[in-house]
Amino acid sequence: MNKKKIAIINGPNINILGIREPSVYGIENWESIEHKVKVLGEQMHAELLFYQSNHEGDIVDFIQQNMDKLSGIVINPAALSKTGYSILDALNALPIPYIEIHLSNIVSRGGWHSESIFTETAAGFIMGLQGYVYELGLQSINYYLEENRNGEVSN
Amino acid sequence: MNKKKIAIINGPNINILGIREPSVYGIENWESIEHKVKVLGEQMHAELLFYQSNHEGDIVDFIQQNMDKLSGIVINPAALSKTGYSILDALNALPIPYIEIHLSNIVSRGGWHSESIFTETAAGFIMGLQGYVYELGLQSINYYLEENRNGEVSN
Amino acid sequence: MNKKKIAIINGPNINILGIREPSVYGIENWESIEHKVKVLGEQMHAELLFYQSNHEGDIVDFIQQNMDKLSGIVINPAALSKTGYSILDALNALPIPYIEIHLSNIVSRGGWHSESIFTETAAGFIMGLQGYVYELGLQSINYYLEENRNGEVSN
Amino acid sequence: MNKKKIAIINGPNINILGIREPSVYGIENWESIEHKVKVLGEQMHAELLFYQSNHEGDIVDFIQQNMDKLSGIVINPAALSKTGYSILDALNALPIPYIEIHLSNIVSRGGWHSESIFTETAAGFIMGLQGYVYELGLQSINYYLEENRNGEVSN
Amino acid sequence: MNKKKIAIINGPNINILGIREPSVYGIENWESIEHKVKVLGEQMHAELLFYQSNHEGDIVDFIQQNMDKLSGIVINPAALSKTGYSILDALNALPIPYIEIHLSNIVSRGGWHSESIFTETAAGFIMGLQGYVYELGLQSINYYLEENRNGEVSN
Amino acid sequence: MNKKKIAIINGPNINILGIREPSVYGIENWESIEHKVKVLGEQMHAELLFYQSNHEGDIVDFIQQNMDKLSGIVINPAALSKTGYSILDALNALPIPYIEIHLSNIVSRGGWHSESIFTETAAGFIMGLQGYVYELGLQSINYYLEENRNGEVSN
Amino acid sequence: MNKKKIAIINGPNINILGIREPSVYGIENWESIEHKVKVLGEQMHAELLFYQSNHEGDIVDFIQQNMDKLSGIVINPAALSKTGYSILDALNALPIPYIEIHLSNIVSRGGWHSESIFTETAAGFIMGLQGYVYELGLQSINYYLEENRNGEVSN
Amino acid sequence: MNKKKIAIINGPNINILGIREPSVYGIENWESIEHKVKVLGEQMHAELLFYQSNHEGDIVDFIQQNMDKLSGIVINPAALSKTGYSILDALNALPIPYIEIHLSNIVSRGGWHSESIFTETAAGFIMGLQGYVYELGLQSINYYLEENRNGEVSN
Amino acid sequence: MNKKKIAIINGPNINILGIREPSVYGIENWESIEHKVKVLGEQMHAELLFYQSNHEGDIVDFIQQNMDKLSGIVINPAALSKTGYSILDALNALPIPYIEIHLSNIVSRGGWHSESIFTETAAGFIMGLQGYVYELGLQSINYYLEENRNGEVSN
Amino acid sequence: MNKKKIAIINGPNINILGIREPSVYGIENWESIEHKVKVLGEQMHAELLFYQSNHEGDIVDFIQQNMDKLSGIVINPAALSKTGYSILDALNALPIPYIEIHLSNIVSRGGWHSESIFTETAAGFIMGLQGYVYELGLQSINYYLEENRNGEVSN
Amino acid sequence: MNKKKIAIINGPNINILGIREPSVYGIENWESIEHKVKVLGEQMHAELLFYQSNHEGDIVDFIQQNMDKLSGIVINPAALSKTGYSILDALNALPIPYIEIHLSNIVSRGGWHSESIFTETAAGFIMGLQGYVYELGLQSINYYLEENRNGEVSN
Amino acid sequence: MNKKKIAIINGPNINILGIREPSVYGIENWESIEHKVKVLGEQMHAELLFYQSNHEGDIVDFIQQNMDKLSGIVINPAALSKTGYSILDALNALPIPYIEIHLSNIVSRGGWHSESIFTETAAGFIMGLQGYVYELGLQSINYYLEENRNGEVSN
Repeated sequence: MNKKKIAIINGPNINILGIREPSVYGIENWESIEHKVKVLGEQMHAELLFYQSNHEGDIVDFIQQNMDKLSGIVINPAALSKTGYSILDALNALPIPYIEIHLSNIVSRGGWHSESIFTETAAGFIMGLQGYVYELGLQSINYYLEENRNGEVSN
Repeated sequence: MNKKKIAIINGPNINILGIREPSVYGIENWESIEHKVKVLGEQMHAELLFYQSNHEGDIVDFIQQNMDKLSGIVINPAALSKTGYSILDALNALPIPYIEIHLSNIVSRGGWHSESIFTETAAGFIMGLQGYVYELGLQSINYYLEENRNGEVSN
Repeated sequence: MNKKKIAIINGPNINILGIREPSVYGIENWESIEHKVKVLGEQMHAELLFYQSNHEGDIVDFIQQNMDKLSGIVINPAALSKTGYSILDALNALPIPYIEIHLSNIVSRGGWHSESIFTETAAGFIMGLQGYVYELGLQSINYYLEENRNGEVSN
Repeated sequence: MNKKKIAIINGPNINILGIREPSVYGIENWESIEHKVKVLGEQMHAELLFYQSNHEGDIVDFIQQNMDKLSGIVINPAALSKTGYSILDALNALPIPYIEIHLSNIVSRGGWHSESIFTETAAGFIMGLQGYVYELGLQSINYYLEENRNGEVSN
Repeated sequence: MNKKKIAIINGPNINILGIREPSVYGIENWESIEHKVKVLGEQMHAELLFYQSNHEGDIVDFIQQNMDKLSGIVINPAALSKTGYSILDALNALPIPYIEIHLSNIVSRGGWHSESIFTETAAGFIMGLQGYVYELGLQSINYYLEENRNGEVSN
Repeated sequence: MNKKKIAIINGPNINILGIREPSVYGIENWESIEHKVKVLGEQMHAELLFYQSNHEGDIVDFIQQNMDKLSGIVINPAALSKTGYSILDALNALPIPYIEIHLSNIVSRGGWHSESIFTETAAGFIMGLQGYVYELGLQSINYYLEENRNGEVSN
Repeated sequence: MNKKKIAIINGPNINILGIREPSVYGIENWESIEHKVKVLGEQMHAELLFYQSNHEGDIVDFIQQNMDKLSGIVINPAALSKTGYSILDALNALPIPYIEIHLSNIVSRGGWHSESIFTETAAGFIMGLQGYVYELGLQSINYYLEENRNGEVSN
Repeated sequence: MNKKKIAIINGPNINILGIREPSVYGIENWESIEHKVKVLGEQMHAELLFYQSNHEGDIVDFIQQNMDKLSGIVINPAALSKTGYSILDALNALPIPYIEIHLSNIVSRGGWHSESIFTETAAGFIMGLQGYVYELGLQSINYYLEENRNGEVSN
Repeated sequence: MNKKKIAIINGPNINILGIREPSVYGIENWESIEHKVKVLGEQMHAELLFYQSNHEGDIVDFIQQNMDKLSGIVINPAALSKTGYSILDALNALPIPYIEIHLSNIVSRGGWHSESIFTETAAGFIMGLQGYVYELGLQSINYYLEENRNGEVSN
Repeated sequence: MNKKKIAIINGPNINILGIREPSVYGIENWESIEHKVKVLGEQMHAELLFYQSNHEGDIVDFIQQNMDKLSGIVINPAALSKTGYSILDALNALPIPYIEIHLSNIVSRGGWHSESIFTETAAGFIMGLQGYVYELGLQSINYYLEENRNGEVSN
Repeated sequence: MNKKKIAIINGPNINILGIREPSVYGIENWESIEHKVKVLGEQMHAELLFYQSNHEGDIVDFIQQNMDKLSGIVINPAALSKTGYSILDALNALPIPYIEIHLSNIVSRGGWHSESIFTETAAGFIMGLQGYVYELGLQSINYYLEENRNGEVSN
Repeated sequence: MNKKKIAIINGPNINILGIREPSVYGIENWESIEHKVKVLGEQMHAELLFYQSNHEGDIVDFIQQNMDKLSGIVINPAALSKTGYSILDALNALPIPYIEIHLSNIVSRGGWHSESIFTETAAGFIMGLQGYVYELGLQSINYYLEENRNGEVSN
């Protein structure tokens, strides 16, 4: 049996985590989060692809280039949550599920933060526990893929 | 050290899970979900209080009666997501965090399903993976309480 | 052949009909209406269950407890027309039709009166002829059930 | 005592009933419905005037020409439900009541279907049981006229 | 001459006043407020009925059971301010006036707090002075009843 | 100890009270109300400044000229409730509280009457009991000032 | 010099004026109004064309057929005020001005009555004085045509 | 018989007519218009009071000071059309009718120009024919007063 | 093989094309456009039915009378784009596709021009190239019918 | 005479056409469409430039780099239809026309699909016939350019 | 060559600057700002007219009285930003430009602060740098006037 | 003391200034503006970094790469004013102020031009004086930085 291949995609400015508004996003930097997620991925026997870009077009290219090998996606669209229709179209062109995650509770933050165009077609949605949402997101996509292999899960 | 005490609260009609609209809520019934959550609770050395009611007032009473002993709450407000202001006020009267969960992706379902008054003040929010959200919700409140004991997590 | 079992459910304050705002709701009290509906039920060889409560949760409990025996429902949600999502969820959990009725023309009354969350999934909707809507409602659910036995009716 | 004279008015495209979108409007054609309504009219000793047109102006002319003889009206405004202000003005110029009916549940259908300008001033409103709404409509106007002769009914 | 009978009705969570968000609702608990209101009631020779519930249906029952004896009502709908249509219908079924009160300035608090469905038909409305609004509310209903006995007050 | 100095400010057209729409504003004229308020002011050992103008700018000037001596304000903005931003800015420039009052229930009246820009920053808000609101308003500002001297009241 | 040719166009139901809702439209019937307008037309040496129809299409045909001979139009669109885009397009296809008139104050009546699609491109607009608006409308179009001959009037 | 006394009231900037945006308001200055209106007033045996101010409060004062002697008012609220609630309240305090006029078609101009708070309670409304609206306004109020003396005119 | 039968339907005022607002609709008159479309129809071996009316009801009648013979429709609803629900219902009653066309870019024109109720269920939509849109519309319906015969085209 | 130079620009994800949601976008891949468009371009003696990118900025750069040589543009903005203001600004900086095309009927698809910021300033707009819209788009821009050379076409 | 004459106009409450909400408006008082602006005016060889009033009408009068001599205006409408249509009309009656300034960032402040009716027709707009905006405003109007003398500046 | 380092950032299409819509943006090209701004920068002893890109992601990268050395930013977001959330997030991640500038008055232009997501958190905002806004922007950020060094400036 092949290993599941799961992409962890991050939108703009996630690369400077820990430095940027720590009261909102936490003091943990990306390296620390990535390390924990990798440990969890190994436990699940899943192959993980990490990708971050400040360029919407690059994320679209990444999804297109990997569309044939991926089993599932965990995505934090960050600042592209409200305008990233190109990424959304790319995700929906794939026959595979994605989980949407956010470090902070975007509804609490209000204004433009509180809306995401990615939510409607996501298999699952998790927000508000800072870096820990990446672990929950990985667990969720794994659960979703396992259940789908065994029987019946619809979103 | 005392055990953490965590309430798992369910709103109306969750008691007939598995029977009701299985294409939306899954075929798993509540007993099966509760069993899995209990196992997880034991692993965490947490004491769990399960409560379900079709009566909004009963849920308010339950929260008031247990307000002094609880460390955290996982709540699926179900049909009260849009109108349960009495429960919301009771939750916000407590100095403890709550995680909001939903079996289905409420944004995908659209209309009145897609709005919840509980989200704004929740410490975390998870939806769309059917019965599994209870396990994720328990993990989340546990993580939140652990982090708060050790240092800094804000929502 | 078993008798059809039909529930006639009334929301808050219908128990004080005749006393309450007679210019809007008519001078006929509930006992008089119930009597006429019973006569009609006998003519149809239908078993009728009457239920009224000022408590939303009680109506949800009533529906859950009778969900296995009912063939159809006639419901006047009254003051819960705009907020009774718990009842609506219970009704939609059942594989049986319901007819929504209102004593007065709720659109004429304007403001909050003019909207009902129950209408979208109702098999039929009748309003504005005071106590007579209960007779029309019973006729309608009976017609709907007869037609469905014979062939094709969709709402 | 004179016989009651009741007009049954149909808006555009009702003449092709049974052919047009049968999943929405039912498979019964207009002739079949008219037959049943006539039988009911005879039982009530009411004289019935049937009128259908695809032309809004013709319906206005029909109402003006019969305004002195009619006791009541049952109207299915169909596609004119949202724009037929000329008909609405003509109806409100008459000192007699009208019952608004629709074959399908217009709220379920959503979009422009779900609004009708005729509802606010209707004595009664019935929808969602296909051809049977004409029988319910005739019963309703008859009830309304009988009650008004005997005593007190307001809409 | 009979004593005026005035009900002081409190919605959900008012029973835990003083504990709950003291920066918003004040540090005074309900017992202290009730004591002051009773003293004022005695000065007015008014009989007072105090009632609080976390259950909307219970408040409706209370109003129905006392509808024949009451002269006036002072109500703090609290968390039911936006959804308590059953209570509103019960109040409007009575031929007696009510004064609406709120401990905090609900408009300052914003969001869902700032709207109340009870205001439109209230004889008077007072908010923003914490526990003191109960004394002002009682004075107001007393003034309203005195004026109505003597002459002309409309709301 | 110095006497409290409290301004009672009236917006446009309050000077013709008793003449203007008595069914809405009551038959009592301003002189009668002012007399009662003065009696109450003496009981409270408060110095009262009465001011009315049909000119928004005059009210702004009055507030600026007295800003150093006033302890609190009771204001009925009347027709300026929706547009008097200059007065609102002047009030908020002062480090003292104000109570907003209205003779009629502005929400009942609907339309433009039902909105006031002054409510959000008011220490208290009272409406709907005609001339009596001035007495309640004076009581309220007095209570607010007393409580603030003794301890903790926030709006 | 040729006589000015002015059309007086009436929308649906104006033919039954005096019978229809006299409290809104006045007790004067159309014949009486037409007589007064004719007298005024003669004083102005203007040729008048009167046209009324309950059919929107007929009014469009009438305008197209007379488009070459008319100098100006006075139109009461009546029930077509909100939906008569075909007439509006026909009017705007002509290089001549029109005055819009209404018997009643359509803004006072509220709801759908208060909006007219014809107002934006009208040379003048008059409402609220019952039958007299036809005389004012004729005076206005005459004034407009006279001024335009002499010099500068823009709308 | 006393002469009718009619006030012609102009809001801000009408005093600089002819200079200000002549393409919108016409090239005729106020003196010229006033002269024509005076001639018409004499023909009607009406006493005319002309008043203009750039100060909203002054117009309120003027109305209050003349409220006992006036039979009717013609008002061009100009820039106060959207915010002059103090003037509107003063007008509605009087038991006499007013006609609202505008030099230009305010709906054509769009934006804030197209709304007036004065329209809802006006006896008549005229706009779009530049200085000539004053003559039409005077005719209208005169007609309204004559008709009311003789019989029945409602707005 | 039978010839395709295609109707070219025009709404109100298209009969006066070339005369009416040429800066918007072009200087070409209808006869010239019809000639070009006929030539194209012959090349396609399609039988064309041209129909224009200023009467919405006539267009409904036309569609009903030809519903059995038509293969497809090209429609320019013109002024009925926003209100022609009767035509829309007739079109949707047919099991054949239609292409919606407009001479001008209706979105550029703004206001009511920019919305069409016909777009949602159209097989194709073309606008903005004046008379040429009829040729493009005919090509489009032809392409659509050819493709559907051969395989798979969905709209 | 120089050849016309026309750019055919495609937004994100059009490069994976045929693979992505074929029920919406058709089974034809981009190579097949491009081939047909090239044949048509040769017939028209037009030089075609094809450009596709998943990067909004690249499309802006492409337009700027070719702005001096292009005669016209056919653009399918795809996922950038709602947010591509940078492209829109670049297009409007050019003194040349563009035709907007979409493979599917974006209004039928609803939600965010149904709005495009490019439509308002487009010379023409075509949607809903899958790959065939590219041929129609090329025909349209060619027609537009030919007409402009000969005389008068405005959009 | 004549000196440029520039008016610096301040709306309500700017006269108490430095005292009023210093955290928003800065601690600098008006005298200090005026001094700096005068120095700058002298450097520009411009004559400055300073005017402040709490009365909207006074500002209108000031503009009318100086309309013939002014070259440009710098205005801080302050609390009149949302309702000062009389001033806006006076400004637009003048053939000269104005620059709108605000001490604080009105968009950051939110609510009613964030809208200004003056912005649409302003030659320039500056906000958010406290007293320094007066210097920037004067520089801007000077630049605008210089450029217009030399060549081409449009706003 | 180190020199202040200030970035001047331009969004899409500013590189073709002078060519693009000169009636809106002026005839001055970017080189000319940059020259003037450099002269001003030298006077202020400030080091200036100029950056322009048509790619949103590039601007985010630029900000991240220079985040440690910059004292302040002047930004013209141009076409990204409504959608550039990635840039906005990058700016707000920095502990330094930015001034937002626009060449034209974006509110005058209306539609999508009139909204900017950058305004709410800007230290200052300037628009409408074409190329001169860059000089005003640089002055403003310099003033802001100087004031902050000396004492108290908040935005």
